[in-house]
Amino acid sequence: MLGVGASGPVHADPPAPVSALPGARPTLEERDAWAVLAGVRGLGPVGFGLLLRRYGSGAAILREASSPGGARRLVEPEEASQGPAEPAEGVSQAIADGIARAADGAALTIGRIRSLGLAVVTVEDPLYPIRLTQIEMPPHLIYVLGSPGAMHAEAVIAIVGTRRPTDAGRAIAARLAANLAAVGASVVSGLAIGIDGAAHAATLQAGGTTVAVIGSGHAKLHPRVHGRLADAVVASGGAVISELGPDVEPSRGTFPRRNRVISGLADATVVIEAPARSGALITASWALEQGRECYLVPGAIDAPASAGCLAFLREFPDRARIVAGIPQLIDDLGLADHLTQPGVTSDVAATLTGVGEVAGRIGREIAVGRATVDELVASTGWPVATVLAALTILERAGLTVGAHGRFRAAGALAAADPDKSRQRPRTIV
Amino acid sequence: MLGVGASGPVHADPPAPVSALPGARPTLEERDAWAVLAGVRGLGPVGFGLLLRRYGSGAAILREASSPGGARRLVEPEEASQGPAEPAEGVSQAIADGIARAADGAALTIGRIRSLGLAVVTVEDPLYPIRLTQIEMPPHLIYVLGSPGAMHAEAVIAIVGTRRPTDAGRAIAARLAANLAAVGASVVSGLAIGIDGAAHAATLQAGGTTVAVIGSGHAKLHPRVHGRLADAVVASGGAVISELGPDVEPSRGTFPRRNRVISGLADATVVIEAPARSGALITASWALEQGRECYLVPGAIDAPASAGCLAFLREFPDRARIVAGIPQLIDDLGLADHLTQPGVTSDVAATLTGVGEVAGRIGREIAVGRATVDELVASTGWPVATVLAALTILERAGLTVGAHGRFRAAGALAAADPDKSRQRPRTIV
Repeated sequence: MLGVGASGPVHADPPAPVSALPGARPTLEERDAWAVLAGVRGLGPVGFGLLLRRYGSGAAILREASSPGGARRLVEPEEASQGPAEPAEGVSQAIADGIARAADGAALTIGRIRSLGLAVVTVEDPLYPIRLTQIEMPPHLIYVLGSPGAMHAEAVIAIVGTRRPTDAGRAIAARLAANLAAVGASVVSGLAIGIDGAAHAATLQAGGTTVAVIGSGHAKLHPRVHGRLADAVVASGGAVISELGPDVEPSRGTFPRRNRVISGLADATVVIEAPARSGALITASWALEQGRECYLVPGAIDAPASAGCLAFLREFPDRARIVAGIPQLIDDLGLADHLTQPGVTSDVAATLTGVGEVAGRIGREIAVGRATVDELVASTGWPVATVLAALTILERAGLTVGAHGRFRAAGALAAADPDKSRQRPRTIV
Repeated sequence: MLGVGASGPVHADPPAPVSALPGARPTLEERDAWAVLAGVRGLGPVGFGLLLRRYGSGAAILREASSPGGARRLVEPEEASQGPAEPAEGVSQAIADGIARAADGAALTIGRIRSLGLAVVTVEDPLYPIRLTQIEMPPHLIYVLGSPGAMHAEAVIAIVGTRRPTDAGRAIAARLAANLAAVGASVVSGLAIGIDGAAHAATLQAGGTTVAVIGSGHAKLHPRVHGRLADAVVASGGAVISELGPDVEPSRGTFPRRNRVISGLADATVVIEAPARSGALITASWALEQGRECYLVPGAIDAPASAGCLAFLREFPDRARIVAGIPQLIDDLGLADHLTQPGVTSDVAATLTGVGEVAGRIGREIAVGRATVDELVASTGWPVATVLAALTILERAGLTVGAHGRFRAAGALAAADPDKSRQRPRTIV
């Protein structure tokens, strides 16, 4: 369990919509409707998309389902309003009944999500990670505990591996995570025991931000022994996310599905120790499938902990890449410059680490005195919606506050002096 | 030093030409002339080729050099007999003088080569390894102690690596060599201390054939402690070869040059442990340069003995291949079938291991009773020159004898029963 009651979630209340601009982001009601529908067993992307096209919104689907005879109408093929060319199918009776039941229990479901402090981020939401929209069949929503900003970092790297690493493997995970933290990259992993946990923990220790993608609902956190680690991830400005409803138990099937989210959130996936048939190799396969970079740490040819990595490198010699050392990997990831770039680790920039390139830029603009959306649009040349999304991220991270249409630095960003940006950069490697 | 005097070379006398067919192979006189010219400092492939084109043969060059005023004429630009388009340059005065001195000392040089038991194999000789002719600037001759057949095996694999291997590296070299022996491949290496020596020794122990390419002349064998190993290589039907005259001392420059012969003799080069800047990586580079396959055994990313291998794999991800385990490597080399192919390890086939595909086929034909060159040409469909070259290899290996135009099995081949070829194959892996 996440220690939601004990230490209190960092961002328990979902943020109020920044703007009512049409299309800027879904309304709270609509996000809640999606969250209710996400809990319907058997309602996958195809059926959900079908209903969404037919009814226009999640809220409308729920309204239809809870109206008299509504479940029946969800099943009926759509009237061929566009002519006979598109006789769209309805959903099955079982699913329709499930939707009706979900609609009846909507208030309870939403209360449950609220009480756990989860934000619901739909694929239409500007807070939804852009990298995840680029994969095939992205989850239509993710439940987020903590700050979504960590998913928006300029560089997001997944570190995964075996649940039974060697000491050497654990040390490599920690060293890599610390270096990624030093360049402002977010570290994504699966909160599992072993390499995953080592990567999360070392990122936190190095002052970085990390995202844990769990293979269960938030209320059924797995593994239980990593409850404190999950709390620490959230408390440090990272996030624990899942595409599964809060009360979904972990099962054999949920982990491979989760793994595609890990790789999908990241620019590159690094596998550190994986025996043959390790789940980490599924994540590596997803990375390749998704057109992302995939790195594997080698080892001795007779070391069981490396067998899967070596086999993968042999099987995909043209696509899987070898890790020849941490400095080379940082270089291969295109992050070596950040290690020595002045300003990256300045107070302001360090403070903005993990909120992503877009929010980071907006944060710097606010730190030097730009205050209104108009000024920020003018100085960046970005669309209003982009600026508003960035402001949301910054507000959620406690780095800005807005009142009466003016924004100013808050928290750590207010404490940071924008002129101290020439100090010696951190280099770990 | 090779123990030439002590145990006696296996094939001390160069074989008499099998045939006087024009073009079949160079005459003994011509080979000797090339060997004499090979000792002339500064006479490289270009100058040698120029003189060869001008005078038609090595023997003619030596005759010219030792005739009155001959050295002078070697220097003069050739008369433009074909018109002004080809005013070919002569060699320098220093080289011409060197050739004249070499011509004067020819008898001594040839006596030296004979006394060491070296065969001189020129690039025009059918015994010259075909793979070596395919590289850029092949040595125009090689000095061979032992049986050239080992260079003609159907599969020839180079195993190289650091002079300071770990125990694990040494064990991998031995295991790979034993497996290569089991599939009838020849193992080429550099006779160096460390991985090279382990590869040679394990091949011998597994009953295979191996070729040591040394970076010095045969009389200056380096390293000296591997004198016994060199003797064993020769005694077991392998060869110790060099492109350097017998009295050339090893030097810094001779080893990289030697390395191109190691990779050039082989279908694939396998590097087992190489720290950064290891000479083994030069061999790997040559392999890529020569369009041959190149495999590197990985290791932990912080193991100095593997650093060079990992860096090479990272640097040439599309061309250098990773070794994920010995069975996979045998598979990648296309040799896995041989491990279970009946007959490969039958008496006859095992006996013919290491003589090469061509000589192996001829050996099998002779074992089943074909006796004349005409019969062998008819049964194989091969050119007469090819059949004659194969017969030479078999004779040198002591597997056939010929008299009055008829050939029959001898030695181990005579003892092998061609009908016992269904016995259980050897598998090591």
